[in-house]
Amino acid sequence: MPLERPLHGGNLVWAATLANCSPTALLDFSASINPLGPPKSAIAAMQSSLAQLTAYPDPNYSSLRAAIGQFHAISPDWILPGNGAAELLTWACRELAELDAVVLPTPTFSDYPRALNSFNAQIQPVPCFPPSPLRSFPAAPSSQTGLLLNNPHNPTGHLFSRDFILPLLEQFALVVVDEAFMDFLPPEHQHSVVDWVQAFPNLVVIRSLTKFYSLPGLRLGYAIAHPDRLSRWQAWRDPWPVNTLAAAVGAVVLQDVAFQQRTWNWLKQTRPMLLAQLAALPGLSPHPSAANFLLVESAQSVSWLQRELLQRHGVFIRDCLSFPELGDRYFRIAIRTVVDNQRLMHGLQDVLVHPT
Amino acid sequence: MPLERPLHGGNLVWAATLANCSPTALLDFSASINPLGPPKSAIAAMQSSLAQLTAYPDPNYSSLRAAIGQFHAISPDWILPGNGAAELLTWACRELAELDAVVLPTPTFSDYPRALNSFNAQIQPVPCFPPSPLRSFPAAPSSQTGLLLNNPHNPTGHLFSRDFILPLLEQFALVVVDEAFMDFLPPEHQHSVVDWVQAFPNLVVIRSLTKFYSLPGLRLGYAIAHPDRLSRWQAWRDPWPVNTLAAAVGAVVLQDVAFQQRTWNWLKQTRPMLLAQLAALPGLSPHPSAANFLLVESAQSVSWLQRELLQRHGVFIRDCLSFPELGDRYFRIAIRTVVDNQRLMHGLQDVLVHPT
Repeated sequence: MPLERPLHGGNLVWAATLANCSPTALLDFSASINPLGPPKSAIAAMQSSLAQLTAYPDPNYSSLRAAIGQFHAISPDWILPGNGAAELLTWACRELAELDAVVLPTPTFSDYPRALNSFNAQIQPVPCFPPSPLRSFPAAPSSQTGLLLNNPHNPTGHLFSRDFILPLLEQFALVVVDEAFMDFLPPEHQHSVVDWVQAFPNLVVIRSLTKFYSLPGLRLGYAIAHPDRLSRWQAWRDPWPVNTLAAAVGAVVLQDVAFQQRTWNWLKQTRPMLLAQLAALPGLSPHPSAANFLLVESAQSVSWLQRELLQRHGVFIRDCLSFPELGDRYFRIAIRTVVDNQRLMHGLQDVLVHPT
Repeated sequence: MPLERPLHGGNLVWAATLANCSPTALLDFSASINPLGPPKSAIAAMQSSLAQLTAYPDPNYSSLRAAIGQFHAISPDWILPGNGAAELLTWACRELAELDAVVLPTPTFSDYPRALNSFNAQIQPVPCFPPSPLRSFPAAPSSQTGLLLNNPHNPTGHLFSRDFILPLLEQFALVVVDEAFMDFLPPEHQHSVVDWVQAFPNLVVIRSLTKFYSLPGLRLGYAIAHPDRLSRWQAWRDPWPVNTLAAAVGAVVLQDVAFQQRTWNWLKQTRPMLLAQLAALPGLSPHPSAANFLLVESAQSVSWLQRELLQRHGVFIRDCLSFPELGDRYFRIAIRTVVDNQRLMHGLQDVLVHPT
């Protein structure tokens, strides 16, 4: 496997080679990670758990599941931790693939079709952007159809409302909602469906703990679904998918209310600011977003723009080549701190105004 | 999922509850982990990588694969790192399950049938112990039969020789050799088949990096197989199965020759000593082993012995209830330091001589 152009975002090694610098020297807007983290509570939990690495993780993950259960006010039996949300998506897709077909709104995070195809699912793409986010779904082609929904949607940042999702639960045999970015919304604006899982045995919610808490290198996510379904998944995978440090971090960060509030305050301030600044640049049209990232339409080739930003400014934006519906005229950026965002804006301005 | 008797070894939480102490206060002989580790090189690699947790792991795992490739003198294209050897076993079993049948020597590590059953494999158990380790295999029932072999074998500690394995590669459509404990043998005594992988496209070797280097909580293993096969596995799973700290540790420990030598010296000294001491106790018959653990036959119920050792001495031995062929009259112990082994011997003597 040579050093290929990454299919997913977040391949800093590839970008650093292009920028001719070390990966840590890059200013990374490609991965949508909270720039305020990781919280001190997470670092402390890791440091105090290093000595426990000489033992296997608790295969029941009791402390971790108790903390997640407390956070969502749901019994731990309904929770399955995973090696990142990505690992759990693999098992969700194995279940979806057993159905006649799986409706997949597009553009879509490229790991969804990867996971569905790996279990030979019949994918039914449903275009939902561009031009405008999807307002309604076509009827399910059969009673044995599944749906894989990302909310807020990546890469558009569109938030599907609970009112939009509710009828889908009657219509589809299995609905998997990936809420990897939902925690970036303050509680009063969230449209999570976690509290519906106990009423709808055909609903699975997948959450990430490493985007908001800024530890994607550690790998931690969880699924919320009926215990019978989770037992099935558990038998499909090995007994220790979550490492000890990740389990320790997960058990504390959900209680870090101060960090959560600080993140919501930061995003409330920076997102409209960055949106307005991008809109003011020639040839760029950013789309409104409920998440911690922005999808931007570009009059210029994004491959070119990405390369120029890397080589001239050490700034890494996410091209959208892995989203065939978007191609070379869109890019996605994480929202970062005000100072970082200014560096991005400075770079964009320079490249777009002085293209050579 | 309540706190159940663990199916696998290493559930310290369960044992600590029985012993009425904290998991860290137990002396754990149940998990076969090197008591000399983790090496300082591993701790240093983790500490210096903590800051990189805010980025996704390199999905190519280039540094890690280069280090493993160098260690085995094989191109990195033939290497796939995993979230512990256990994760890779899942994918190996998915491939094995596509064949007509899979020959599985028994008793067997309980995660093998778990993984095979999860992909509906036709398992053909081949009893190989007791009374004595298998010397030859019955002919494969069809040309499309697979074989899953553990070498050295867990829980017996039996080492299958390369001469024994070579004809199997002609006989079976796919041979998966789990060499999770092979690194505990000094190089001159190993019977690894890693160097045969390039000659036999139907051979897969799986290795662990967290038993020898004493970091099972971190999760790290790798598969060595034909690049086409590994690309297939890669498409079955998410892009970032190995966390950043594990990847950093793997890139350095294979070069830690001093730690390796220290481990081989320790085992050469302690294994025959412990074997002799166990054989001298009434009702115990330890079996010779090539690995860092010993299988012991017991005239007494092992469930009883295990409970007494936990409650009276805080010592945790591995019962063999998850090996149906062995049941309640066998237990397995990790070999630990001389001092720890003495505590085990003291506990065993006390319980067996004063059964109350």
